[in-house]
Amino acid sequence: KYETDAQLTEQQLTSEIKFTGNLLTLYRDEVRLPSGSTSVREWVTHQGAAAMLPIFENEDILLLRQFRYPLNQVFWEVPAGKIDSDEHAEATANRELMEETGLRGNNIQALGTMHPSIGYTNEVIYLYALWGLEQFESRTDHEEFLISRRLPFKDAVEMVHRGEITDSKTALLLLKAGH
Amino acid sequence: KYETDAQLTEQQLTSEIKFTGNLLTLYRDEVRLPSGSTSVREWVTHQGAAAMLPIFENEDILLLRQFRYPLNQVFWEVPAGKIDSDEHAEATANRELMEETGLRGNNIQALGTMHPSIGYTNEVIYLYALWGLEQFESRTDHEEFLISRRLPFKDAVEMVHRGEITDSKTALLLLKAGH
Repeated sequence: KYETDAQLTEQQLTSEIKFTGNLLTLYRDEVRLPSGSTSVREWVTHQGAAAMLPIFENEDILLLRQFRYPLNQVFWEVPAGKIDSDEHAEATANRELMEETGLRGNNIQALGTMHPSIGYTNEVIYLYALWGLEQFESRTDHEEFLISRRLPFKDAVEMVHRGEITDSKTALLLLKAGH
Repeated sequence: KYETDAQLTEQQLTSEIKFTGNLLTLYRDEVRLPSGSTSVREWVTHQGAAAMLPIFENEDILLLRQFRYPLNQVFWEVPAGKIDSDEHAEATANRELMEETGLRGNNIQALGTMHPSIGYTNEVIYLYALWGLEQFESRTDHEEFLISRRLPFKDAVEMVHRGEITDSKTALLLLKAGH
């Protein structure tokens, strides 16, 4: 019935902001479906983020333990953070790595982007790996509470496959970098 | 400074619903941070989802093209959908696969869970792969508009690494199943 991408497109009919916060803006939009009937889309805007996997010379990596309120749970995560306005994603990744771990590196590899939840957010996350690391003093943002752990890269990849690492950006970045 | 997961936990002080929709409920909560100071958490609840990668005998797989309104873009996706209340995730995965593709299978493998965006949603996605496929007639939900494409598994994995597949559940499920 549908054969081309263009036939799948939805047209915006109305758009209404239902919540404006510091992090999220929530929209409730009406759309025209490909069939001609109408539907509602509830979604949030997000400024985007960048994630950085630091890889040491001996093939250790560094991951963080961070508490995440929506799930009331501590997760294994790669260093990451929101992209400031007018900031390049690569600069964000370097900045967040420095702030969260005190690490700086000189050999960065872009590993593409990911869209964490395409049904209801426009967030995109830029993924990077970094080599040639040097340890500086960490200057953790006063609202970030985390524990950093150094572990072998292959152990972290196994933790993804065993289901111990479930954060999407962290799991995907580890598997892409390990490729 | 912080050494155990318990030290990272945030305590809920207040919780307020700011939007209630059909898909999303948005909360604005105040929390007590590990340092003792307070902060705000904006987040949405989601009922959870299940995703299913169908793998044919010749190692072809099936992916869908779907338009996603928040990004105004058509994505490559594995068949997936929201978990109905009281439905087991595995039943959701089988149901969505049948509805979207007409495929049924007899050899399912659970590939763990993923959390797409732990900073602002409690959504969890259950990942499955399915073998022993039989083609039945598809009965696509009247509000789903999609194109299905059969392609070699290894081609799809390469599309993840080349950055052509960026949907988090699809990318991670392909790399976990290809392990």
